Amino acid sequence: MLKLTNGHGSMFPLLLSCLCFLNSFGFVVCGFTSSFIRTQWPAKDIPLDNEVFAVPKGYNAPQQVHITQGDYDGKAVIISWITFEEPGSNKVLYSSVEHQYGHTAEAKVLNYTYFNYKSGYIHHCLVDGLEYNAKYYYKIGLGDITREFWFQTPPKVDPDSSYKFGIIGNYYPSSTFNSLSTLDHHMKSGGQAVLYVGDLSYADRYQNNDGTRWDSWGRFVERSVAFQAWIWSAGNHEIEYRPDLGEPTPFKAYLHRYATPYMASKSSSPMWYAIRRASAHIIVLSSYSPFVKYTPSGYGYVANSSEWIGRDTLADCHHAFSDYNSNEAHYMEGESMRAVFEKWFVRQRVDLVFAGHVHAYERSYLVSNVNYNITNGDSFPVPNNLENSFISPHISEYPVYITVGDGGNQEGLAGRFLSPQPEYSAFREASYGHSTLELKNRTHAFYQWNRNDDGVLVQQTLLCF
Amino acid sequence: MLKLTNGHGSMFPLLLSCLCFLNSFGFVVCGFTSSFIRTQWPAKDIPLDNEVFAVPKGYNAPQQVHITQGDYDGKAVIISWITFEEPGSNKVLYSSVEHQYGHTAEAKVLNYTYFNYKSGYIHHCLVDGLEYNAKYYYKIGLGDITREFWFQTPPKVDPDSSYKFGIIGNYYPSSTFNSLSTLDHHMKSGGQAVLYVGDLSYADRYQNNDGTRWDSWGRFVERSVAFQAWIWSAGNHEIEYRPDLGEPTPFKAYLHRYATPYMASKSSSPMWYAIRRASAHIIVLSSYSPFVKYTPSGYGYVANSSEWIGRDTLADCHHAFSDYNSNEAHYMEGESMRAVFEKWFVRQRVDLVFAGHVHAYERSYLVSNVNYNITNGDSFPVPNNLENSFISPHISEYPVYITVGDGGNQEGLAGRFLSPQPEYSAFREASYGHSTLELKNRTHAFYQWNRNDDGVLVQQTLLCF
Ligand SMILES: [Fe+2]
Ligand SMILES: [Fe+2]
Repeated sequence: MLKLTNGHGSMFPLLLSCLCFLNSFGFVVCGFTSSFIRTQWPAKDIPLDNEVFAVPKGYNAPQQVHITQGDYDGKAVIISWITFEEPGSNKVLYSSVEHQYGHTAEAKVLNYTYFNYKSGYIHHCLVDGLEYNAKYYYKIGLGDITREFWFQTPPKVDPDSSYKFGIIGNYYPSSTFNSLSTLDHHMKSGGQAVLYVGDLSYADRYQNNDGTRWDSWGRFVERSVAFQAWIWSAGNHEIEYRPDLGEPTPFKAYLHRYATPYMASKSSSPMWYAIRRASAHIIVLSSYSPFVKYTPSGYGYVANSSEWIGRDTLADCHHAFSDYNSNEAHYMEGESMRAVFEKWFVRQRVDLVFAGHVHAYERSYLVSNVNYNITNGDSFPVPNNLENSFISPHISEYPVYITVGDGGNQEGLAGRFLSPQPEYSAFREASYGHSTLELKNRTHAFYQWNRNDDGVLVQQTLLCF
Repeated sequence: MLKLTNGHGSMFPLLLSCLCFLNSFGFVVCGFTSSFIRTQWPAKDIPLDNEVFAVPKGYNAPQQVHITQGDYDGKAVIISWITFEEPGSNKVLYSSVEHQYGHTAEAKVLNYTYFNYKSGYIHHCLVDGLEYNAKYYYKIGLGDITREFWFQTPPKVDPDSSYKFGIIGNYYPSSTFNSLSTLDHHMKSGGQAVLYVGDLSYADRYQNNDGTRWDSWGRFVERSVAFQAWIWSAGNHEIEYRPDLGEPTPFKAYLHRYATPYMASKSSSPMWYAIRRASAHIIVLSSYSPFVKYTPSGYGYVANSSEWIGRDTLADCHHAFSDYNSNEAHYMEGESMRAVFEKWFVRQRVDLVFAGHVHAYERSYLVSNVNYNITNGDSFPVPNNLENSFISPHISEYPVYITVGDGGNQEGLAGRFLSPQPEYSAFREASYGHSTLELKNRTHAFYQWNRNDDGVLVQQTLLCF
């Protein structure tokens, strides 16, 4: 509340400066482990001939259409799609008027092989110079076999721009029906863009890292990502290091298929970047790249980045900071990344850190362990407190760490939590679901986690800032 | 002592199971910070026209000759050299009889550019199938301009094979005269091979990462490394990431110039490997590569390596584990790597961990912080103690961490230590020097640190195992 008048002009000065956890009855609850027992879904894969994976009809029809932000501030998109029979047209026709496509942009076309899989022709097209807060229509394909979609640009970058994000991770639609439910819920919840915290197709779980699973994944999520930007970060299932198959290049399929606007934020690696979108500033970290001090693309990018703004908002990664997750699965795997980046998050006043990887949901209180070192024994994460300021009381707020590795995946849920629940842990539940973050203005934002069950959207937690 | 009869047949079952620190008067001293004030040397660079950097005479004369181990067990060497005028001969003639070269091996030749620097022709030649414990002579060059050297192979891999290593890091000869002294001392101390813990030429400290500094470094150290294997690990000064110069590939010069036998230990990266040499088993880690869980070349190599033996001996890296160094310079920079690898070191009973990077000398007691996690508050490193066993008392010994970043370098000494001296720190002094480790047999080894001063070899510490 104090920060309401501090006037440092940055984004979300109050985001998370007061944090309450209300259960559905409105009571404040501390350190809650949900006893909710989720309904059992069928455990086997959805068959690949299910309509959700259907290939669009027609010779060389564009498929797996997806868009992401194309610049730093949200006035560009990268439109990507794949054709199989031939490269086909590399043009995107677009316009703010439906069916009257007055503008054209050209895509780059690439492909790759992975063991005995041969990819289709992957098109990435930057469409820039767009207006804020406008609806655009676009058309791809050739002759009779064209497809049309639309997207909405975000409002202008401003601390008071309202915007609603969905946050999804470890989202594997072809396994069980949980993921169907997650995407369905996201699309009903009004999220305008998605922060995707890694682990996409899980192709690496199939024989020879079956590349066709990347394609079926791409076709499945098209229903959302052709119409709104998903902001990508890479997970361990994207590594696909298989020298035994002659495939020693990490992230080969992922990097060919998913473009990011990294150069717009002066990053040297497509896996590290920053964007601003409406009132959010988002920094994407790469958990499986070099990131300790002196490494240029990781530490160098974060430490030297001109992309830090007065108050940064969201950080996005795959398993960094799973320390602040008290699930037994992957416990402390994030310690290495915490040791490097937590000090930057505190210093730059990052508000929320989203990670995936752990197949459960958990939210921490505002915590920091930056005072820990191997000599002093200060090992407990401390809650946000002006007495515990890192540099000065004016920038002492700590982030909240949120694990959203519960999109629904082949590996099942991670149901064993540390007991007793650590003091840093505010809420945890082993269910599938996704989160929404609704930024209202510079003083208010609402965050909620949405459990999947019975096809009903369950408002499980409400945070008010 | 208990371990004398446990008969698990591994190397150095007793190494470091008892550890005493004797000062020069034979008293046991705990947590000692040396008050020694080193003599001042001239602070400016040795001029490049000094004889120590001299180019060998003659057209296309081989220069910068260096050897390293070429296989897993010490029966091969990689002989490397550079010619400037033309590729020249790619042959190594060698024999166990002087001047009678009955064997030939062929080198691969490569070169590279770095900004406006163009390297010479870099030759790497594997010479294998050698006998243990034998002297070999070798000749390189063509016509009248040949050069002859020799090396000694190590004794056979056996827990009782005696061997003496020098350990050098951050060794930069063209800056001040400290490094001259370090190499001189190493050559007088009888070390049979060198563990080099990173930061070689410091070419990155000169304008446009002046590649000629790599060459002068190579010429300077030839006096030792042409005659005995130096085992390389990479430091931050090898990264040389300069996209502003059009040089975005990390470790470009280092990887072209310094070969390692990584494939012999089934590593996928030249920066991670293991070798056995006499009674030592050495694992080389790369501080600036991806190494968290799921990364294949780092974590994957260490965790899944068939190269672990019953008792591993030495680990080599550049800034990992500088946590166990209490110098204010780079304090806690190694935390990220400690979080990943310390558990493996304890589990696999690594005896000594050598690191460079900090420009001072420090030795820890046998310590471990593997019990630390972000929930339990057990943050203090604990001393070796059977009560504190990690898995079972039989494998409970912890490593000693030794920082040898004091070869002598352009950046000067790091003279500020944390006060009070942490309990894990046994001895520390801000002087230039190097270490020697003399493995006697399966029950005894001697380790000492050799301070440079006034050209006199100073026996500063003695460890008896
Ligand atoms: Fe994951
Ligand atoms: Fe260094």
